[in-house]
Amino acid sequence: MGADKLIKGIKTYFTKHNFKKAVIGLSGGLDSALSAYLVSKAIGNNNVTALIMPEKSVTLKKDVNDAIELCKKWKLNYKIIEINKFLQELKRLPWQQNKLSDVNLKARVRAVILYNYANANNALVVGTSNKSELMLGYFTKYGDGACDIKVIGNLYKTDVINLAHYLKLPDKIINKIPSAGLYVGQCDEKELGACYADIDKILKSRNFSSRLGKKLLKRIKENKHKTELPFVVR
Amino acid sequence: MGADKLIKGIKTYFTKHNFKKAVIGLSGGLDSALSAYLVSKAIGNNNVTALIMPEKSVTLKKDVNDAIELCKKWKLNYKIIEINKFLQELKRLPWQQNKLSDVNLKARVRAVILYNYANANNALVVGTSNKSELMLGYFTKYGDGACDIKVIGNLYKTDVINLAHYLKLPDKIINKIPSAGLYVGQCDEKELGACYADIDKILKSRNFSSRLGKKLLKRIKENKHKTELPFVVR
Repeated sequence: MGADKLIKGIKTYFTKHNFKKAVIGLSGGLDSALSAYLVSKAIGNNNVTALIMPEKSVTLKKDVNDAIELCKKWKLNYKIIEINKFLQELKRLPWQQNKLSDVNLKARVRAVILYNYANANNALVVGTSNKSELMLGYFTKYGDGACDIKVIGNLYKTDVINLAHYLKLPDKIINKIPSAGLYVGQCDEKELGACYADIDKILKSRNFSSRLGKKLLKRIKENKHKTELPFVVR
Repeated sequence: MGADKLIKGIKTYFTKHNFKKAVIGLSGGLDSALSAYLVSKAIGNNNVTALIMPEKSVTLKKDVNDAIELCKKWKLNYKIIEINKFLQELKRLPWQQNKLSDVNLKARVRAVILYNYANANNALVVGTSNKSELMLGYFTKYGDGACDIKVIGNLYKTDVINLAHYLKLPDKIINKIPSAGLYVGQCDEKELGACYADIDKILKSRNFSSRLGKKLLKRIKENKHKTELPFVVR
């Protein structure tokens, strides 16, 4: 299933860049769980710190509890940081917020916290986006997109699920409805307009001729800037 | 001097991506001043908002006043946002801060504010790094490095100064000692260990054989990760 290859690749990257420690945002969802598992196998559970960063009144208690349970099971260091107070201050900025600014703010505040931990503790930030999300640009630029190493960035969402089964991750994590968790009731497959099985079929084949394919291609084009370095005027 | 070409390139990028408005962090220093000037010429001063984001007790009052003066002179919209209260909350995170985490936090909080404005107002974030800084990785990853378009990213620092003279930017801005302004007394040329004239000579020639050249090459290699997309494990 390629787990060994990924673990080896992670180990090599940390060694090459002379880092021993990693920090990762753990949501209680599958992508971050699998990412944390792979990193802990690569560099040792003692060297991994998981930050659980719930937003009170948005993040489900169940997700926080699941994240804590994973940390205990895999013996990862972890800290719980509620992000509400940071959001409250920032939402008072002197302009009108909208839905986009509101949800992206959450992802970006989490990135600031992860990088603050990383800089203070000489750690690398582990990104948790999968290949389906990366191709579609389905993430927040400089939010959850901000990291040093993406450990499942070459796995489509359906591959993530298969690998998680193979590695015997808890069923309740694997079977969770995929969500970025930025607002109550958010659901990837609803936002993307199809289930990941259908989406991945199109992304893998690169055949965008169907109605869904055209929709996905539009999204890919619109979000291309998220997957590239900033444009330099010449 | 290439100003027309840059202005045209900026205009083309905004049109192509269907954006009318820009937001830029204005420090009172030369790089952000020249960037704001070029953008305002490209998309119209009415469409540019400058955020002046001082840190009380660190940012010089003179720099804030200079930034305000530029906004008035060029008729840019501007807002002054003190960042202290955001930093205060974040510094209470449950781990020990160090100098690196401390200075990077400031740059990253500014990026969060710029992107919050951009998302709330349908604007692009204009980056203000010059080519010397970009090559050396002399910026904060996901801090001042976070933007949609770098308008002076193809100009070495010495070229920035020449272009600013040509465009008749105020002498007091041009002659300011280059600084990222992240702590009291910070000075680019002191941190980099040489003046930009010498640095740029090496960066332009790609001849790194001198003692300074070797130092710069070491910095380039160490900061390579800042100038690339995050590593994807395969």
